[in-house]
Amino acid sequence: MSIIALRWLDPPAGPAIELLDQTRLPAVETMVTCSDVPSLVDAIRRLVVRGAPLLGIAGAFGVALAAARGDDVGAAAAAIEQARPTAVNLGWGARRALGAYLRAMADPDPEAKRAAPAAALHEARSIAAQDAQACADMAANGLALVPERARILTHCNTGSLVTAGEGTAFGLILAAHRAGRLAMLWVDETRPLLQGARLTAYEARKAGLPHRVLVDSAAASLLAAGEVDLVAVGADRIAADGSVANKVGTYPLAVLARHHRVPFVVVAPVSTIDFDTPDGSAIVVEQRAAQEVTYLIGQQVAPEGSLAYNPAFDVTPPDLITAIVTERGIVQPVTAGNLRVLGAEP
Amino acid sequence: MSIIALRWLDPPAGPAIELLDQTRLPAVETMVTCSDVPSLVDAIRRLVVRGAPLLGIAGAFGVALAAARGDDVGAAAAAIEQARPTAVNLGWGARRALGAYLRAMADPDPEAKRAAPAAALHEARSIAAQDAQACADMAANGLALVPERARILTHCNTGSLVTAGEGTAFGLILAAHRAGRLAMLWVDETRPLLQGARLTAYEARKAGLPHRVLVDSAAASLLAAGEVDLVAVGADRIAADGSVANKVGTYPLAVLARHHRVPFVVVAPVSTIDFDTPDGSAIVVEQRAAQEVTYLIGQQVAPEGSLAYNPAFDVTPPDLITAIVTERGIVQPVTAGNLRVLGAEP
Repeated sequence: MSIIALRWLDPPAGPAIELLDQTRLPAVETMVTCSDVPSLVDAIRRLVVRGAPLLGIAGAFGVALAAARGDDVGAAAAAIEQARPTAVNLGWGARRALGAYLRAMADPDPEAKRAAPAAALHEARSIAAQDAQACADMAANGLALVPERARILTHCNTGSLVTAGEGTAFGLILAAHRAGRLAMLWVDETRPLLQGARLTAYEARKAGLPHRVLVDSAAASLLAAGEVDLVAVGADRIAADGSVANKVGTYPLAVLARHHRVPFVVVAPVSTIDFDTPDGSAIVVEQRAAQEVTYLIGQQVAPEGSLAYNPAFDVTPPDLITAIVTERGIVQPVTAGNLRVLGAEP
Repeated sequence: MSIIALRWLDPPAGPAIELLDQTRLPAVETMVTCSDVPSLVDAIRRLVVRGAPLLGIAGAFGVALAAARGDDVGAAAAAIEQARPTAVNLGWGARRALGAYLRAMADPDPEAKRAAPAAALHEARSIAAQDAQACADMAANGLALVPERARILTHCNTGSLVTAGEGTAFGLILAAHRAGRLAMLWVDETRPLLQGARLTAYEARKAGLPHRVLVDSAAASLLAAGEVDLVAVGADRIAADGSVANKVGTYPLAVLARHHRVPFVVVAPVSTIDFDTPDGSAIVVEQRAAQEVTYLIGQQVAPEGSLAYNPAFDVTPPDLITAIVTERGIVQPVTAGNLRVLGAEP
């Protein structure tokens, strides 16, 4: 697969960030070029770029972009972080690049000060490289949880469109496929924005995986029929107690998996864990526009003026999660103590 | 509300059945005229007319139409019944009108034979009148299960678009509203065909109910937040053990309602109970075309050639159902014995 979801452009084309416009996939493959932070913030808000790990990388490159342009870098980092408040990686990536920049600026050596934009860019590139490695490590670690002839159900989109590597949950699914263990990938369409039907099906097709798309509420029928051996999803934010905020529709899968005694596994890098958020109730769930529900592809579906309830995420409590797979190892059972031990490692 | 979903046309305009084309609501209100049985079968397959009770009525009027045209009435009844095999009411209505027709034809009096088409039509009209009365009775019976300031979650579409009266679950919701007990109606959009967003929101708006539309997988967030006091749905078929086949997405709501200790109520006329189907495993679930999932409003969403898993219905076992509300009373707990007592009444 050669999907490039984010690319840094040096001068003379840049400085700029080029993004694969994920709102137009799979029908159209087109790039959006962000030459300043406001256009990047807009792209993040419109979900041109999305997915927890890739948002971290976008946040870091956004700070590098501000630095390269000579903008107020602190203000840029704050603006990027606020583009999607629930996505913890976004602020994490922005702050890492900001830290590299500020350390260079604090250096008494004028040469180091001049190189501060390069330091921010170096940090962003380093985050991307670490992310690709983390994907590989999560997949290797998680494979222990995948049985032979596995039929895996997934939700939303977690592959190379949202990471600098092969993905979180999707990376594990690819590894299972390469190990000859994937009998079927069930792809939840993932309303309202259809990241599953549009993007995961696109990734699955490119990778040659056996797969079927389904409406989110049909997953229960598959579970009841014994057609699912494992549910594997990503995470947008993990609280210190192991509560997982992820795309709306994740929590009902966890309840259903428990009801049918099927393992429910979350695959996410350690950067997704937010130890400052004590538990699920402290996670702010972004409410998005009614039009995402009442319109489809720009066409009105519900009657004129219909109101909607449209949370972007839901929160799954740790007791419904069989295991959290990270690049450092597997957290099982999912407890605050086990998470803390993992987070404290090098 | 003055929604007329089905109307019989006498000569000279008929004989014909006029249907409100529900595939085009809420944007366009247009009628489809079926002058013969094949066009009615096509309309049933395309979901121009839909919903268990109204399908029964459509089935009966379809047989009356065949009789009025001088077609092979037995063959017409069989063709109508096969248009959607899971919808038990369809065959039930067709067979009732067929029975009235055959009884008249078996009469030695040539006058009675000549009146056989009229007998079939009379039977169809009588089914419609009984259905309207059943709706009123279900609503009156079910009101005992609705608390004050109720926030009710519903799935699919169960109002005057699918019955000759005010509806099954929706009739109960309307009654709750008139009794001053409805604080909020949560409307599942009901993928893939969006009967909730398109039709239930349309009915709710016409009736002036406080309501919000949501993607099906967001119902779990509402339940987790304690924002739902009652889940009320209809049924397409109820097996003798109380298993309920209904629109895909019903079963996960039942599991989630149980997980959150919220009552889950099915509202359906006795005609929906199929005592010849012993239990849920005997219910044949219709698998529908992949395009319903992979296309939206005629536009491709998933990549070219994507396969889908697209069951029309799911099956909810009786132990997850708090009560079944019928026109004859409430079945609670839902057991084969309690259902049989109810079915045996006059």
